[in-house]
Amino acid sequence: MDYKKAGVNRKKGDEASFRAYTLAKKTYRKEVQEAEGIPYFGASFKDYKHLCLLAGSDGVGTKLKIAFMMGIHNTVGIDLVAMSVNDLIRRGAEPIIFLPYLATSKIVPEVAEEIAKGVAEGCRMADCSIMGGETAELPDFYKKGEYDLAGSAIGVVEKDGIIIGKNIRKGDVLIGLASSGLHSNGFSLARRVLLTKYKLEEKIDELGGKRLGEEMLIPTKIYVKSVLKLLKTEVEIHGIAHITGGGIIEKLSKIMPKGLVAKVKFDSWKVWPIFNLIQKNGGIDKEEMYRTFNMGLGMILVVPKKEVTGILETVEGTKIVGEVKAE
Amino acid sequence: MDYKKAGVNRKKGDEASFRAYTLAKKTYRKEVQEAEGIPYFGASFKDYKHLCLLAGSDGVGTKLKIAFMMGIHNTVGIDLVAMSVNDLIRRGAEPIIFLPYLATSKIVPEVAEEIAKGVAEGCRMADCSIMGGETAELPDFYKKGEYDLAGSAIGVVEKDGIIIGKNIRKGDVLIGLASSGLHSNGFSLARRVLLTKYKLEEKIDELGGKRLGEEMLIPTKIYVKSVLKLLKTEVEIHGIAHITGGGIIEKLSKIMPKGLVAKVKFDSWKVWPIFNLIQKNGGIDKEEMYRTFNMGLGMILVVPKKEVTGILETVEGTKIVGEVKAE
Repeated sequence: MDYKKAGVNRKKGDEASFRAYTLAKKTYRKEVQEAEGIPYFGASFKDYKHLCLLAGSDGVGTKLKIAFMMGIHNTVGIDLVAMSVNDLIRRGAEPIIFLPYLATSKIVPEVAEEIAKGVAEGCRMADCSIMGGETAELPDFYKKGEYDLAGSAIGVVEKDGIIIGKNIRKGDVLIGLASSGLHSNGFSLARRVLLTKYKLEEKIDELGGKRLGEEMLIPTKIYVKSVLKLLKTEVEIHGIAHITGGGIIEKLSKIMPKGLVAKVKFDSWKVWPIFNLIQKNGGIDKEEMYRTFNMGLGMILVVPKKEVTGILETVEGTKIVGEVKAE
Repeated sequence: MDYKKAGVNRKKGDEASFRAYTLAKKTYRKEVQEAEGIPYFGASFKDYKHLCLLAGSDGVGTKLKIAFMMGIHNTVGIDLVAMSVNDLIRRGAEPIIFLPYLATSKIVPEVAEEIAKGVAEGCRMADCSIMGGETAELPDFYKKGEYDLAGSAIGVVEKDGIIIGKNIRKGDVLIGLASSGLHSNGFSLARRVLLTKYKLEEKIDELGGKRLGEEMLIPTKIYVKSVLKLLKTEVEIHGIAHITGGGIIEKLSKIMPKGLVAKVKFDSWKVWPIFNLIQKNGGIDKEEMYRTFNMGLGMILVVPKKEVTGILETVEGTKIVGEVKAE
């Protein structure tokens, strides 16, 4: 008896880790150095008056099932990174470190590398360095060909730069940032509704002739660079809602100070056709749709009126979607 | 159709998250503050001349299967924290932030809370703050009653305090730190061998009458406070090997500078009975045993001779286990 016969292939694991490391190194920011293969992040913290670290963790969730069914593994890593880094940037923190976790029952280095490519691509989009992570072989945990993918991001921010919503005022404007599609929330419902009726390879008229699987796998949009650009040019942002599970209303109400309410104009942006397709086929009421899906907006900025024109001009995919009123 | 009918119970998820958050708050170090429920870490970085951040990620692996079979869920969290924080302290970095990831097909708040208790306990042992994390409900990913548990830790260290082994010299002494038992490596092999022959509830003579399951679930030892105590009193440590998968020889050889070799005296410490039980029942050769298990040592310090007496006196469970020689 040895370790391999017990179901763990150390060589394949090492190979997968090596390939992931090679890809990870390409995501190092200039502040990342290595001491005998150990990456560490330093060098630029001296510019901070009062450095704070924030953390965000998330997984891809059941969107992974679509990747399994399609045999496409190089995009879910983007979703993975997006979920955590978008959560940091909504607090004003710049993501600097990302740590992915991949678990499967039998490591296939080629598939693990495809997954790692997506993670690395997401990190490039967010300018975030992969400084570790773990690829775990857990025999008998996952079905053949399946895996789980989760991760954590660390962000840095000046203490007085943390965005928590306390500066939100009556009259502030809600600016929506377009989502790229379903993002990574509501897939249990979306799969249940859509896969009962359609096949993933099916071209769907309502999606402009796109294949369903292709549409469902569109990676989550990463808003880090757009928001950082605003923050670094000292655009005043009073609050940011990251629209994930729970939806627009819940996420906005969480950042509203007492006595204020976010009045959303629900006809002011384009709801992507995929959401209409789900609603129609599932006979789902509007409220449940808005509570489960992003409905076309991945992030909403709450800003003073004076900043609106500048933001609409600087950031692509932005639209005024409401305002802050007294309750 | 709604989200719950699609297999996701948002209420149970929220309840589990809330319980985990309540436990996490108790692990906050004094540097952790909250801004409207968002924890951030700051306040004390000013003392650093050149702050560096390091990261470590790991999972509990198939030790979880023992927890499932025993129905004991409040210790694997300690293993989880141990794996990552021990990996940081071996580089000289003080773990400050921990981020757990729990995934299961159907969240049972009571079980999730047991798991979170272990994580919180591990973080208290390591003086590390749980500043986030994720509890994911992934219908149809895991078997009933099973889950996966992984996590990441962030550590801080002065740039010139990073321990990489480059100061290791001929004549340096290897000091072994006793493990608590199997720790979290080699469980696929251990389970295969032991569960073929014994039941988990069985009292085993070779284990001094202890039940097998109890022995196998002993939490991984956390070495953070022991090592930090040495580092903070400026004990010179040239290298640290964290003995996980790969074993003593591999982990020591990884930190040895060119031309030097770690000569381990294999009869100089107590090999725990559980390892002998596995070896005997599996007919496993000695080399494979030492490559797969910690064999009684969870960590090995490489130190100059002058520090030996002090360390043996200060740190419990330490023993001289070899020395550094020219190759």
